[in-house]
Amino acid sequence: MSLPEELARITGPGFVLTADEPVEPYTHDETQGLAARPDVVVRPGSTEEVSGVLRLAFERGLPVTPRGAGTGKCGACVPVAGGIVLSLDRLNRILEIDRENAFAVVEPGVVTETLQEAAAEAGLFYAPDPASKGSCHVGGNIQTNAGGMRAVKYGTTADHVYGLTFVLPDGTVIEAGGKNRKDSSGYGLVRTIVGSEGTLAVVTRAVLRLLPLPAARGILLAPFPELDMAAEGVQAVFGTGITPSALEIMDRSAVGYAARYAEKEFPFAEAAAQLLVEVDGDGPEEVEGDLMRIGEALLEIGALDVFLASERRRQEDLWRIRRVIAEGLKAFTTYRSVDSVVPRSRLIELVRKVREIAAAHDLDCCCFGHAGDGNLHVNYVRTAAQDTVERWEADVRSAHEATVRVAVALGGSISGEHGIGVTERPFFGIRHTEAAIGLMRRIKAAFDPRGILNPGKVLP
Amino acid sequence: MSLPEELARITGPGFVLTADEPVEPYTHDETQGLAARPDVVVRPGSTEEVSGVLRLAFERGLPVTPRGAGTGKCGACVPVAGGIVLSLDRLNRILEIDRENAFAVVEPGVVTETLQEAAAEAGLFYAPDPASKGSCHVGGNIQTNAGGMRAVKYGTTADHVYGLTFVLPDGTVIEAGGKNRKDSSGYGLVRTIVGSEGTLAVVTRAVLRLLPLPAARGILLAPFPELDMAAEGVQAVFGTGITPSALEIMDRSAVGYAARYAEKEFPFAEAAAQLLVEVDGDGPEEVEGDLMRIGEALLEIGALDVFLASERRRQEDLWRIRRVIAEGLKAFTTYRSVDSVVPRSRLIELVRKVREIAAAHDLDCCCFGHAGDGNLHVNYVRTAAQDTVERWEADVRSAHEATVRVAVALGGSISGEHGIGVTERPFFGIRHTEAAIGLMRRIKAAFDPRGILNPGKVLP
Repeated sequence: MSLPEELARITGPGFVLTADEPVEPYTHDETQGLAARPDVVVRPGSTEEVSGVLRLAFERGLPVTPRGAGTGKCGACVPVAGGIVLSLDRLNRILEIDRENAFAVVEPGVVTETLQEAAAEAGLFYAPDPASKGSCHVGGNIQTNAGGMRAVKYGTTADHVYGLTFVLPDGTVIEAGGKNRKDSSGYGLVRTIVGSEGTLAVVTRAVLRLLPLPAARGILLAPFPELDMAAEGVQAVFGTGITPSALEIMDRSAVGYAARYAEKEFPFAEAAAQLLVEVDGDGPEEVEGDLMRIGEALLEIGALDVFLASERRRQEDLWRIRRVIAEGLKAFTTYRSVDSVVPRSRLIELVRKVREIAAAHDLDCCCFGHAGDGNLHVNYVRTAAQDTVERWEADVRSAHEATVRVAVALGGSISGEHGIGVTERPFFGIRHTEAAIGLMRRIKAAFDPRGILNPGKVLP
Repeated sequence: MSLPEELARITGPGFVLTADEPVEPYTHDETQGLAARPDVVVRPGSTEEVSGVLRLAFERGLPVTPRGAGTGKCGACVPVAGGIVLSLDRLNRILEIDRENAFAVVEPGVVTETLQEAAAEAGLFYAPDPASKGSCHVGGNIQTNAGGMRAVKYGTTADHVYGLTFVLPDGTVIEAGGKNRKDSSGYGLVRTIVGSEGTLAVVTRAVLRLLPLPAARGILLAPFPELDMAAEGVQAVFGTGITPSALEIMDRSAVGYAARYAEKEFPFAEAAAQLLVEVDGDGPEEVEGDLMRIGEALLEIGALDVFLASERRRQEDLWRIRRVIAEGLKAFTTYRSVDSVVPRSRLIELVRKVREIAAAHDLDCCCFGHAGDGNLHVNYVRTAAQDTVERWEADVRSAHEATVRVAVALGGSISGEHGIGVTERPFFGIRHTEAAIGLMRRIKAAFDPRGILNPGKVLP
C-alpha cells in the first residue's frame, strides 16, 4: 500500500492530497521566495487521526510538517524536508466559551478573529491580536507565541495558554494544564510547547484564558517629522504611567504601501512616521482622559499633531491601514522582513542603525511594528541597485544579518513574534550560545527522539 | 582532600558548614515533621562559584539540593538524599531597577518584599505577592511558580519572569531571555525552568517584569454565615466585571488561629467564613466605586455585612491577619496543608467535599486561600481522635489523597502554588498520565542527565 493510501485509511480518502494543484497552497507561507513541495498533504479531523498519522510517520521515519493557516513569515510551516504536511485546518471548532471560569476551549484551526468575536459575544475578551487575525489560526499563534497589537498591555499568546492537548511524534496523546488559574504540579509542559514552532508536538486542543471585555476603547494618531522622534515617543507614552492597549509605529513608506493597497487616504500620509496609540478601559471618559494625557506628552516631545478617534468605525479604518501594511509590501515590492526586537528603551538606536544598514546596502527600508514592545518589523526593499537576483540576495542577506547583530548587541533578539522557522535559522548562533543550543537540542530529543517533526526548522 | 575542603576551595572556608548546629536550619522547610541532614552546606557567592560547586558534584555524582529561604511547604528544599545543600542566600542583591524598560534584575536570594519596596521607590510594581513575602526569596518564588495574593489579577510568578541566568548540573552557565517584552527565538527555556522546583537548573539571576504602580488600593471584608456561601461569592465578584487584585477566603478557624497568633482582634471573627477583596486602580474614587459594586453583589448573595478599608494602615492590619494564618496553624496545631486548586467555578464543590473528607477522618479542617484563583489551602488538623502518631499519619495521609482525587476529578490539580516537592510526590500519578510523566522524565534528563539535582523531588 502506498503512503497516501495508508494515510487515507486513517482520515478517509477525501483528506489526502497528492496532485499538484491541490497541494500547491501547502507549499509556502507568507515568506517571499520560499516554497517546497511535500510528498503528501493529510488533513486529519480529530486528535485520534492526528495521532494515527504521526504514529505511521514515526514508524517509517518520515518528516512531518504541521501547518495552520500558513500566515507565518519565516517558513516554519514550509515542508523543506518533503514528506507529509499535516494540516490542522479541519480541527476548527470552538468547543466551549466557559463564562464562569473565563476560558475558551478551542481546536487549533480556529481563526483568531473568530475566537475574539465568540468571546466578545459572551462579554469576554481574547486579548492576543496579531495583524493577520482575520486569517491566522490560534494553533499557529500558539506555536509561534504570536504577539500582535495588544501584547504591550496583555502579553503574548503564551500568557493566555493554560492548557493543551498535544500529540507527540510517536502518536502519544498528552493533556497538560487546564482551566486552573495556577498550577504548580510538575513541569510546565504547556509553557515549553508554546513558541516551539511545531518542532516538539502537534497541538490539537487549547484552553485559552479570557479576560473581562474592556468597556471602552479609543485611538490616537500622532505624526512626527522624524522616525527616531516617533521612537522617542514610546518612552513619552510610558512616562505618563498609562499602559496603552496598543502602541504602534509606522514610517512613511509603510503608510504609503498600506494606503495604496487599501485604496484609501490616510491622515498625515506625508509625515516621516506616525504613532498609533490605543487605550482601553472601563468607560469613555477614562479612555479619553488617558488619550489626552498621552497626546500632550507626545506634543511635548515634537509630535506635529494629535488626532483622536473615539468612534468605532473610524478606529477600524485606522486599524485596517496598520493591518494591511504587510499585504501592501507583498503586493508592490520585493522585500525581506526582519522581526527585530529590543528592550523598548533601545528602539531609537535600533531605528537609526537599520537606516544606516539600508543605506550601506543600497536598499530601501520600510519600518513598522509594535513600538511599545520594542518590536520593529524592518523590511528591506529591493531597489534598482539590485540589478540581478544574485545581487539582491547577497545584499539582503547581509543587511538581514547585520540587523540581527545590531538587535542582539542592543540586548534584543532575533525575532519578537514571527519565530525562527527557516529564514532566521542561520542567525540562531548570533543570539544563543552553543551551550544553550545544546540544551534546546536535548529538549527537542526529549519530545522527538527520531527528529521527524518539522525538520529543518528553528535549531541550526 | 575531603568534600568540605574541596568546596571551601571554591567559596572560601567561611561558607562551608558541616557541624550540627549551623547545619540545622538547612535541614527543613515549613513542612511539619519533615527534616533531613545534608553532608555539607555550601553558600556560594557568585554564579561562577555556583558553577564550580555543581561541576564538582557532577563529577562525583553527588546529590545537590538547592535552597532559598526555606519557606516552602512541600519539602522541595529538604535534602532527603543527603549530599550537598547549595544555599543561595548570599546571592541577595538587587542588581538593577530599570525604569525605562520596567524590569528588575535580581539575584535569587532577594526577599520578595525587598524587591517590591525597591520597585515602589522607583514608581513601579512587582506584582507577585506570596503570603510569606517578608521572608521568602525571589529564587524560591521562581522555582515553585509562586502565586500569592495578587495572582488573580496579575498572574503567577511565571508571568513576570522574562530572563534567567542559570547553571546546569554539569556547571554550564546559560543566559536565556532578557529585557525583551516578547521573544520568539527558540525554545522558551525560561518558561521551562520556572516551577521546576530546583530539579532542572540553579537560577543565579533573574530579569523580572515590573508594572506601573497602581495609584490607589482598597479592601473590602465580607462575612458569611456559611463557607460555601463565601465560595459562591467568588462568582458574584467576577459577575461585576471587575477583576480584583486579591480575592481571599478564610474560614472561622483560620481567622481564629491568625488572631491568636497575632494577638489581635479581627472583625467578624464569629462568622463562618469571610471574603477579603482588594481592588487597585488609578484613583481612590475608581477603587471605592469598584468596591461598592462588589460589596452590593456580595450582600445580594447573602453576605452578613460589608466592611470597607480605604486607609492604608487599616488595610495592612487586615492583610497581616491573612498572612499569619499559616504561622498560627504551625504554632498551635499539628496539621497538614493540602494546596488544592480547581477551576474557580468548582470551588463550592471543593469546599463541600473537603468538609466531608475531614468529617470522615475525624479531622478538623481549616480552609483559607486564594479563592479568586480556585486555590484553597486545605489544612487537616489533628484531633483527639488521632490518639497515636500512627493513627494521625494514617488518617491524614488518607484525607490528603482523597482531597487530591476530589480536586483532580473537579478538573483541578495537586498544587496551585506550593509545588510537589516531597510531600505531594506520591499523588503525582493521580494528576498526570504515565505518558506525561515519561515526557517530564526525558525533560529532566535533558537538563540533568546524571540526576544529581534535587533528587527525590517532583517526579515519582
